[in-house]
Amino acid sequence: MNLDTTDRDTLADLGLASLRWARRLCDPVLRRAVGSIREPLATRAGYHLGWWGVDRSSAVGGSAGKALRGALVLAAATACAGDDSGDAARVAAAVELMHNFTLLHDDVMDGDRTRRGRPTVWSVWGVDDAIVLGDALHAAAIQILTDMRDQSVAMQAIMRLERACVELCVGQSEDCSLGGRMRVTVDDYTRMAAGETASLIGCCCALGALSAHADDAIIAALERFGRELGLAFQFVDDLIGIWGDPRVTGKPVGRDLARRKATLPVVAALNSGSEAAIELAALYAGGAELTQSDIDRAAELVEVAGGRRAAQRFADERLQAAVSALPDAVGSEELVALSQLVRRWQR
Amino acid sequence: MNLDTTDRDTLADLGLASLRWARRLCDPVLRRAVGSIREPLATRAGYHLGWWGVDRSSAVGGSAGKALRGALVLAAATACAGDDSGDAARVAAAVELMHNFTLLHDDVMDGDRTRRGRPTVWSVWGVDDAIVLGDALHAAAIQILTDMRDQSVAMQAIMRLERACVELCVGQSEDCSLGGRMRVTVDDYTRMAAGETASLIGCCCALGALSAHADDAIIAALERFGRELGLAFQFVDDLIGIWGDPRVTGKPVGRDLARRKATLPVVAALNSGSEAAIELAALYAGGAELTQSDIDRAAELVEVAGGRRAAQRFADERLQAAVSALPDAVGSEELVALSQLVRRWQR
Repeated sequence: MNLDTTDRDTLADLGLASLRWARRLCDPVLRRAVGSIREPLATRAGYHLGWWGVDRSSAVGGSAGKALRGALVLAAATACAGDDSGDAARVAAAVELMHNFTLLHDDVMDGDRTRRGRPTVWSVWGVDDAIVLGDALHAAAIQILTDMRDQSVAMQAIMRLERACVELCVGQSEDCSLGGRMRVTVDDYTRMAAGETASLIGCCCALGALSAHADDAIIAALERFGRELGLAFQFVDDLIGIWGDPRVTGKPVGRDLARRKATLPVVAALNSGSEAAIELAALYAGGAELTQSDIDRAAELVEVAGGRRAAQRFADERLQAAVSALPDAVGSEELVALSQLVRRWQR
Repeated sequence: MNLDTTDRDTLADLGLASLRWARRLCDPVLRRAVGSIREPLATRAGYHLGWWGVDRSSAVGGSAGKALRGALVLAAATACAGDDSGDAARVAAAVELMHNFTLLHDDVMDGDRTRRGRPTVWSVWGVDDAIVLGDALHAAAIQILTDMRDQSVAMQAIMRLERACVELCVGQSEDCSLGGRMRVTVDDYTRMAAGETASLIGCCCALGALSAHADDAIIAALERFGRELGLAFQFVDDLIGIWGDPRVTGKPVGRDLARRKATLPVVAALNSGSEAAIELAALYAGGAELTQSDIDRAAELVEVAGGRRAAQRFADERLQAAVSALPDAVGSEELVALSQLVRRWQR
């Protein structure tokens, strides 16, 4: 697919509108779900979701999530001629809660102190409360699905979402173990990302189609689209993790390098066999905390070793593969628009 | 209910047989569920469940769980004239996995290094992997329920189990905050225990009745039985946490006191207004690590202040209330037997 600049801008507008629409549709479902949780967890859940500050009367600060996953559910449902029962909105809200539960636990595991431009839940209320809140949001996500009108679709949605959750956990466990290994190949990394990120995004697209009562072949095709898109999204996120603008990402610059994370640009660079790779490997092998100048040097080495270019290429290939997976029978404009947004985020 | 010694022994035998039966019935369902999870999580799940050592070929060491929750599901199903489809066994296995997911996270939050006489998952593979494994077992528990023959019962079971999970999380969050407060009343403590322990045990009994297609009144009565039993169980667990035999409990003696936990005997003692209470409060208020002689003294003070006796009385009252909640219409012998086991564990 080749698009000129005007097409791209129109698509980006459609993608952004799709995200806004998803946030609007998910909001009442999420507020009802969170509202049914007893305090103090409800307030903390709302804080994490960007509804208010550390107490309900204080200003939000930072931003809410993009709701990419919810938007993919709704776009996939629309692509399959939609559903009018509100079930797609329930599914969209459920996947958003599921994603947010994993973020709460990720922040604990990664020791991240900021997300979306403000302190993470564990850094405000402690690790124990972040673990417990994540567990509660996992349960609340499934509760939303039990509330769907079409109970047979609900059961399949629950089955698929929990399967994706298990896959995501396996991916996270691989991610934890990658950190400790010096020889990680691009294939190792891609397999981890497939579990950790692509499984849930693939599931979102499948669930959207499912809620619109699409047939199995269409559901499978949309899942493939989502999985490819999920890989692209992870690769772009890795690029942002090194070269992203902290004002946009809400995360400190060079954070992944500071933590010696084996992200795709780094893995690709380390596997390049170049002199820059050797210097980068030495920096990554050291035990001492990296200074800002070490981090800047590491970013430079990843670029010189071709890691940035390689990650961009892999991301583009996955985006192409995603769009190619879309069946002709579905109205895929919104899905394509969302996939193009992912491409834009890397800039 | 007044039982003589022979009756008690017969009941205890029935209770123990019921636990064995539950472990036998849950085992194949659990092995299938864990077997569907990719490595390395499957091996770690099996370790936590007491199937093997840190790798599959090494000896178990320590013991497996008692399967009280699974046994309550099956006993409640039997009390309501049972089910032949295997759905009760699926529910029993699901609640066991759910319980085990919460144990994995509890051990992280409490910093407990041993459970069932051997190292906890976090102390073997690290905190991150224990968090992720817990998340995966939560998902796997729900997946088991999606596999039930009666899909309408399955949906209700999922809804109830996730509701209990949210309640449990709220209770855990209250438990975390109790630790930091000096004035905790017995009512505060009971409310926390109702969420943290009684909600899931109540849910088990309700789910057993549900899987046997009992009517709403019976389901509600069995849930009440389970909630009262759950409180008794927590109170007995608190007694064991101070005076239990480590060879039986698999946990270090006086562990709860060493961590200055606000358990029921301690809370009751602190609220007694006695001189022992004042000395105990001073010990609990200090910042330094408690020595073994401090811990021994604390146990003595709890006893002198009447905390032990009070906790035993509360446990007995809850057990009586549990048995009284059982409707005449159900064949409750096995449920009564399991409740009497809880009483025996405190000795």
